[in-house]
Amino acid sequence: MALTVVGSIAFDAVKTPFGERERMLGGAAVHFSLAASFFTQVRPVGPVGDDFGDEQFELLRSRGIVTDDIEHVPGGQSFFWRGHYDFDLNVAHTDDTQLGVFGEFEPKLSDAAKAADTLFLANIQPDLQRQVRAQCDAAGFSGLDSMNLWIDIAKDSLLAAIAEVDCLVVNDAEIRMLTGESNLARAARAVMEMGPRAVVAKRGEYGAALFTSGAGTEAGDDHSFFALPGFPLEDVRDPTGAGDSFAGGFFGYLDGVDGNLDEPNLRRAMGYGTVLASFNVEEFGTERVSRLQREEIDERFEALRRMTQFEGLPAPRG
Amino acid sequence: MALTVVGSIAFDAVKTPFGERERMLGGAAVHFSLAASFFTQVRPVGPVGDDFGDEQFELLRSRGIVTDDIEHVPGGQSFFWRGHYDFDLNVAHTDDTQLGVFGEFEPKLSDAAKAADTLFLANIQPDLQRQVRAQCDAAGFSGLDSMNLWIDIAKDSLLAAIAEVDCLVVNDAEIRMLTGESNLARAARAVMEMGPRAVVAKRGEYGAALFTSGAGTEAGDDHSFFALPGFPLEDVRDPTGAGDSFAGGFFGYLDGVDGNLDEPNLRRAMGYGTVLASFNVEEFGTERVSRLQREEIDERFEALRRMTQFEGLPAPRG
Repeated sequence: MALTVVGSIAFDAVKTPFGERERMLGGAAVHFSLAASFFTQVRPVGPVGDDFGDEQFELLRSRGIVTDDIEHVPGGQSFFWRGHYDFDLNVAHTDDTQLGVFGEFEPKLSDAAKAADTLFLANIQPDLQRQVRAQCDAAGFSGLDSMNLWIDIAKDSLLAAIAEVDCLVVNDAEIRMLTGESNLARAARAVMEMGPRAVVAKRGEYGAALFTSGAGTEAGDDHSFFALPGFPLEDVRDPTGAGDSFAGGFFGYLDGVDGNLDEPNLRRAMGYGTVLASFNVEEFGTERVSRLQREEIDERFEALRRMTQFEGLPAPRG
Repeated sequence: MALTVVGSIAFDAVKTPFGERERMLGGAAVHFSLAASFFTQVRPVGPVGDDFGDEQFELLRSRGIVTDDIEHVPGGQSFFWRGHYDFDLNVAHTDDTQLGVFGEFEPKLSDAAKAADTLFLANIQPDLQRQVRAQCDAAGFSGLDSMNLWIDIAKDSLLAAIAEVDCLVVNDAEIRMLTGESNLARAARAVMEMGPRAVVAKRGEYGAALFTSGAGTEAGDDHSFFALPGFPLEDVRDPTGAGDSFAGGFFGYLDGVDGNLDEPNLRRAMGYGTVLASFNVEEFGTERVSRLQREEIDERFEALRRMTQFEGLPAPRG
């Protein structure tokens, strides 16, 4: 199995009440790839500039990530984001965004990247998402993230992109905004009527909810619902990349189940997404996930399972 | 087993995007009592005015609620609240509050009310909560709700009241505000250090989280965590009273388990709270819960269980 992800490969400057970093590896495709790397072979696709060097490549390769489709643009600078968080870590404040080489990005995928079984289109301009989707026609399962900006300025493109994927993974506020429907269950149903058979609503510290429709449900019901809380942590230092880490755990796990996308596997994928997101926020940027061990993931998954079941033992808090 | 609740018994005027009512039965003790009435015998304590008549008493009595401790104040008017909700049903906008007979309320409990096994102090002035708590010294399990107003203007009284109960049930924003701690897990721990051995964080549409400490946990862990999403509904018409209905289901169920407040029972109580809250919001005021059947509760509880388990079948959405 193999997974291709397209999205930003970036440097971030982040300040939170618990510290700051002036320049660290970041970007949606990076957080996604690191999380997914525990489950399958993953290829990030995206451009970088001259500032992206051996240190960054080495960090990705040390996790088994295939970096052949990271395109070095000579003379360019990598995508850069500066932001901060105050008391409420759910709200990111953007102070600066420099597109750099991302401003001229035209996705050109290698044959190996095109042959992926699973495809994730991280949050980039929706026409670019569609270009990548069209190149990966072997993918049996595809997902897409987006943001309020594209709903505002490129809604038609975004709707077309959504119609071409199996699973939408966005913040719950964006599902509401996209559909004009304040009720999340109705909004998710409206998205599924556009094409996707699954919708994951990311809810920040409140976790994530999964809506599915059709043949993927064992009981033959038209629709089903599943939700997990965020893993309860007493120390959250930097929420940047949590949503991308969630998606990486979710799609990484699903790429490893040989096409068996039934409801139990989708639910387990929600669990792994939740676990990877929780590790990501414990430290700044990629610091925690880049040295994470698979056993830690499985331990926390089991703790999460115990924390969300009616029967069975309670678990210690993380 | 028997349960006493003190809190507002009121008339509400409510407008939402789905309709409006000019005057309907409401108040925390009313919503709580109706929800709890499916599990145990419940006695609401609170004052009403001349406007509270046979129709209101009959509605409560038809659910087996004992109304002996509802105090009629001749010449007075009942508590009145007017509010509205816009697109975001999570946010109540208060347009008018008239305390009426509640302004002079001094709780005088009957011997039967004092003998309750379980006590719930709904959101009223914390010194009044303490007066009631002191009168109910037989209660083996007690809980308390509050609001931002009391944190602002009567924090010392509120802290004293919290120290005297077993379980705090408030909105998550209020747990943060009360403790000055942005991290919910830390905030809950801080509350438990004040006295309560359980903290329920109400999270609106995101559901509720339970933090427990000490001997109540089967595994002997110091602390445990459990969370449930809100039940996914496509039709939410009026969220007024959802939190009180949650508390009624939670404490009502726990009053019926003969003092066995272990972790599995606390989790099941979270489930019944979630279910009662979900029925409450389907229609205005008490309209839905006042004609609810026990079988409907059990069906939805089972659906909620299936929606939150990693293994097992998916459930149709409500």
